[in-house]
Formats: sequence, C-alpha cells, structure tokens
Amino acid sequence: MEKRAATDYEIDPLLARRWSPRAFSERTVEQTVLCSLFEAARWAPSCFNEQPWSFLLAGKENTSEFDRLASCLSPGNHWARQAPVLALSVAALDFAGNSKPNRHAYHDVGLAVENLVIQATAMGLASHQMAGFDVEKARELFQIPARHDPVAMIALGYPGDSDSLPEDLRKRELAQRARKPIRRFLYTGHWGEGASIIS
Amino acid sequence: MEKRAATDYEIDPLLARRWSPRAFSERTVEQTVLCSLFEAARWAPSCFNEQPWSFLLAGKENTSEFDRLASCLSPGNHWARQAPVLALSVAALDFAGNSKPNRHAYHDVGLAVENLVIQATAMGLASHQMAGFDVEKARELFQIPARHDPVAMIALGYPGDSDSLPEDLRKRELAQRARKPIRRFLYTGHWGEGASIIS
Repeated sequence: MEKRAATDYEIDPLLARRWSPRAFSERTVEQTVLCSLFEAARWAPSCFNEQPWSFLLAGKENTSEFDRLASCLSPGNHWARQAPVLALSVAALDFAGNSKPNRHAYHDVGLAVENLVIQATAMGLASHQMAGFDVEKARELFQIPARHDPVAMIALGYPGDSDSLPEDLRKRELAQRARKPIRRFLYTGHWGEGASIIS
Repeated sequence: MEKRAATDYEIDPLLARRWSPRAFSERTVEQTVLCSLFEAARWAPSCFNEQPWSFLLAGKENTSEFDRLASCLSPGNHWARQAPVLALSVAALDFAGNSKPNRHAYHDVGLAVENLVIQATAMGLASHQMAGFDVEKARELFQIPARHDPVAMIALGYPGDSDSLPEDLRKRELAQRARKPIRRFLYTGHWGEGASIIS
C-alpha cells in the first residue's frame, strides 16, 4: 500500500513515500538487501564522525533470536511480530576517544536510522520504528554495555495487506498522514516568528 | 564537487552523494527550494508523531539576521559564514500534550534533519551540520524557551569550489570519506557478535 505524504512543497518521492505501516508481508528479506539498509545508515553524518550507532538484528528464519528480540516489544507493539525482521538501535553515549559525553549521540543515531528507512523505501521495503519496548530487558538480554542506550526497535519487511490487521490497527493503517505545516516550526529572527521565506 | 561514498553494499545514489563540504557557492538559494528542505524534514517519523523539531533560519540577504545566527558559530566553524544560508535545529524536550520528557527528542530531530539534508542533495545543494556553536548564546539571542535545546547548526547552499578554502580546510575537503564497516556496528544475538547476514 502506498500512502504518499500530501506535501505543501515538492519533496523527493523517496521521502514522500516513506511511512510507517503495520502490515508486513511474510516474504523473507534477502541478506544483501539487509546489508544495504545498514550500509545506508553507515554513511550518515555524525558529530566528529563518531558514528555512535549500533544495531541488533534478528530475522524470523532464526526463531530463537527473533523471539528474544520480539520479547522486548511493549504489548501495544505485538503487531510487529508479523514483520520478518526486527532491529534495535543503540546509542553510544560517550565519545570512544576521550570518554566524554556525546551530546549528539541520540541525534546522530536518528540521522543514521533515517538513512536506513529511506534506503528501505528505495528497495521497496516498509519500516516502522517503535519507542514502545522494554529498554532494561533489552539491555540485559543482549548484554548492552554501560553508557550505551537502547533507543528504538524497528520492524522491517516487504509491505503487507492492511486487511491482515485487526480492525483497530487497520483503521490506523488507512488513516491520512498528518504533520504540522512548516510555518509552525520554521522561524526567522525570534522563536515563534514564522520564517520570511514561507509565502 | 562530488564525493560519493565508497560503499561495500549498494545504496541509493542520493544517500551515497550526501556529504558535508565546507566550500559553498555565493549563489542565493531560492525560497521555494528552502521550503522544500523543511517540507522534507516535516514528513520524518517521530515518537507518537510528536514532531519535536524546530528550526531557526537565516539567509545572507538579511544581513543582520544572518550575522546574528553566524555569531553563534564556534571559531573553528567560521568557514560556515561563506554559506548563503544558516539554520539551527532545536529539540522540544517534553511532549506537548502531557509535559513528560520525550526520550526520543534529539533522536527524532536527527530523523528530520537527515530528511532535510537528503532533500538538499536531491536539489543539488550541499549541507554541513555543526555541533560547534555557542548553545547558551543561541538560546539567549533567539529567546528559545525552557525545555527546548539548540541541537546543531546547519550550513546550506549550492556547492562551491574547494580552491576557495584555506589550505588546511581544502585538504580536509579533498580527503577520502571514512566510516566503520557495518560488521563493526551490526550484531545478532549478543552485543559485539557480528550479524550472521554479513558475508
């Protein structure tokens, strides 16, 4: 299902087509495709080129690993067990070189993950990031070291049929995408003063 | 100047071509082009669709506003005064609805900014994000409210000629782009255990 953004200004089709569905196909995602997704994340920019991102990855063909990662999902995100691939993004909170806190750790994980989900879109895949998961359980299950934070879980796979979803989720799947217009977050001179470029 | 990523796995050309140069052309960036960049940011995903990003924007045609934003740059980033457009990303640290802390505020600003810089690449523009700026000065100059953090400054414009840079920056401009390979940050099962999909 395509659910293109209803944009006020022209943007690249790849960006307009990216969205976060809950219906995934059972089709296995090829290993080279998965490698391309993380390769895209790899080339994101980051503060001092620190690259503070890591990912745990589990595909459904490895049942025990998939179930272990899926066991971290919040009840409200159990729909994501339908996706053939789950990932967990992790932020390194300190610079490796001098152990000082990296103020941009979460931010730079976001830069990398957006590259990942755009690459997914480019390859015909769907992606859905989730804040709802058990951070401490993930930390323990995967022995994530100190000063590293589990950030978000990500469902990945080929798009599925919205009719496969329970009724409440199907409604959300078909609802229109909504965002604040840019004049609500783009300012010139002072906070809250709409940028002069917006006609 | 093009400086495509030397990728181990295929990624979309838009993602491979994005990089962070310091040489910018004096050419003015059209207002509709700027609107498209922030429109791209607008359609990024975010936790609970909170959209915790805001931006302050200044173009060189408005000298006083440009100088005010440029005055926040760290000395090491004064090269960015050559760019025709500067922006500052800002994160809303709490959810607007219930004032609870948004753990993903910085992360989601990163998602939006990556959309912005990819849209810039798609339109032939260059972008360069900078952590080096005076956060408290920016907060004061632009009356950024409490529980909102200035995150990064962003230089934007059409690409320039690397010969216009001082010698030390010109060398960095021409140096090869480098990243950790994905096996260094992509794990299965346990932290530090390379993902089985990587051949």
